[in-house]
Amino acid sequence: MSELIFLGGAHVNVLPGDSRGFAYGDGVFETMRVHHGNVHWWTAHRARMEAGAERLGLTLPSDLLIARAQHELFGRGHDGVAKLIVTRGGGARGYARDADAHPVWRYSRHPLPPAPREGGLVLRWCATALAVQPALAGLKHCNRLEQVLARGEWDDPAIDEGLMRSTEGDVVCATSANLFVLHGDRWSTPMVDRCGVAGTCRAWLLSQTGAAESRMRPADVESADAVLLCNAVRGILPVARIGEHAYSPHPAVAELRQRLARVHPGFAAGH
Amino acid sequence: MSELIFLGGAHVNVLPGDSRGFAYGDGVFETMRVHHGNVHWWTAHRARMEAGAERLGLTLPSDLLIARAQHELFGRGHDGVAKLIVTRGGGARGYARDADAHPVWRYSRHPLPPAPREGGLVLRWCATALAVQPALAGLKHCNRLEQVLARGEWDDPAIDEGLMRSTEGDVVCATSANLFVLHGDRWSTPMVDRCGVAGTCRAWLLSQTGAAESRMRPADVESADAVLLCNAVRGILPVARIGEHAYSPHPAVAELRQRLARVHPGFAAGH
Repeated sequence: MSELIFLGGAHVNVLPGDSRGFAYGDGVFETMRVHHGNVHWWTAHRARMEAGAERLGLTLPSDLLIARAQHELFGRGHDGVAKLIVTRGGGARGYARDADAHPVWRYSRHPLPPAPREGGLVLRWCATALAVQPALAGLKHCNRLEQVLARGEWDDPAIDEGLMRSTEGDVVCATSANLFVLHGDRWSTPMVDRCGVAGTCRAWLLSQTGAAESRMRPADVESADAVLLCNAVRGILPVARIGEHAYSPHPAVAELRQRLARVHPGFAAGH
Repeated sequence: MSELIFLGGAHVNVLPGDSRGFAYGDGVFETMRVHHGNVHWWTAHRARMEAGAERLGLTLPSDLLIARAQHELFGRGHDGVAKLIVTRGGGARGYARDADAHPVWRYSRHPLPPAPREGGLVLRWCATALAVQPALAGLKHCNRLEQVLARGEWDDPAIDEGLMRSTEGDVVCATSANLFVLHGDRWSTPMVDRCGVAGTCRAWLLSQTGAAESRMRPADVESADAVLLCNAVRGILPVARIGEHAYSPHPAVAELRQRLARVHPGFAAGH
C-alpha cells in the first residue's frame, strides 16, 4: 500500500490530527478497480462522489489533481485498487462547517482482491440492521459503523459476505456489495432511497438488465432463481448459498459476467 | 490547540493515513471540561466510553496512559476542554476488524467555550432527523454526519443551537447537547435508546432531578414551563426561546445551575 495525502491542492504527506474525517467521518469515498494504470469507471465514480458532495456540502478536489495522484501511484501500467477519501477541511472543534476550508483527501493504492470462491459466494444474514436515513441514503459516505458491526458478526472463513436488512426489515445490500436477484427472466435490486449505497457496478447492471428497483424481503431473495453481488472492485460475484438456501450456477449470471468483461478490461478473464 | 497522537501506548505524533477513524468513523470520543488541570467528571466519561467500546468491540487505552496525556497537555493548573478520540486500529482495506490491533487515539487541548448568551439560549428546530439505530443509540461514536448536516442548516449567529427529532418524529436532543424540560415540578428528558447520546451532564441531571426518560413530541417541549440544554463542556444552559416560543427565567433552572457549581468546580461562578 502507498498513499498520498492532500490539503486542497497541496501534498501534505500526513493527515492533520484535527481532520473532520477522523473526528466525525465527515466525508465520502470511492473504491476503484485499476487496470493497466487506468480507472475505467472514473466518470461514474466521479459522478457518484459529486452527488455525495452536493448533498453534504463538501468541496471536492479537481479531476486534474486526482488524475495526478492516480498517475503517481499507479504509473502507466499497474493493476490494483485505488481508494479516494475526501473529507471536509477545517479543524475547529464542533459540528459547524467552515465553507472556505480546503478538503483533506487521501489517494491510496491497494492490491487486487483475491479471486472469488470457485462455484459462487457463501452468504449469511446479518443481525445488524441499517438505519433508515434518507438524508444519507445512496451516498458512499464515511459513516460506516453499521457495516463494521455487521462484518464483525462472523469470522468463519467459509462465509464470504453478509446480507443486511434495514431496521424496517427490507433487504438492502451486502456489507460491501450490492445485490441483484433473478426471478424467471426479471432482475431486481433493492432500492437505496432509505439506506444503502448506490453502487457504480449496480448502476451499470441496472442499465444492462433493466432491473426493477424494489423493496425486497428475505423470502424474495431466498426464492430467486439466481442471486449475485456486485461492486466496482470485484465486478459481478455469483452467489452459491445464503444460509440453507443453495443456488445452481445460472446462465444469466454467466452472461452478465461475460458482458462486463467485454466493456471493463479489469474484469476480463485472467484479471 | 495542542494534541498528542498514540498507537496503543506509543506516542506516534501523526495520524496513520490508513486510520479506520478517518475511513469509517470507527471510534468513540469524549469532550471534557478541564478545571485547574483536572477532568472532574473523568469517571463518568470513562464509564460512557467503556460502554461504547464494549458495544463496538473497541480496545481502549488504559487510564494511566490517558492520565499521562492529560497531564502533559494541561499540566497542573490549566483550564480548558480536553477531547479524546479512540479509534479502532488496523489498516487493511475493508470492514473486517483486526482484534489484535492497537487503538489509534488522540488527546487534544482546546479553549473554553464562550459564556452562554445572557438571558438564555435561542434555539431552532432542525429539519435533519436522527435515524433510529438501537445498535448505536446512546453512544458517543464518531459517525456524526447527521449532526454536521443539522448544524449546517443555519449560520445566523442569533441562533445558538438546533433541536433534532428522530425520523419517527420524537424529540431527541440538540446538535451537541441533551435536553430537559420542566412541567410543573416534573422534569423529563428524551430517551436515548433509539438514537441520541447518553450525555455525562444528562446522567448527573437525571440523578439530581429524578427526571423521567420519555418519548417527547415538539408540543411537549413548547408547552414546558422551563427548558434547558446540558453537556459536559458547557454545563447547564437555560433556554430563552425555541422558534416563536419564549420561556421566562425559571428558579428551578437557576437552582440546578447553583447545585452543579457546588459539585463541579469548572462550572462555579466566574468559570
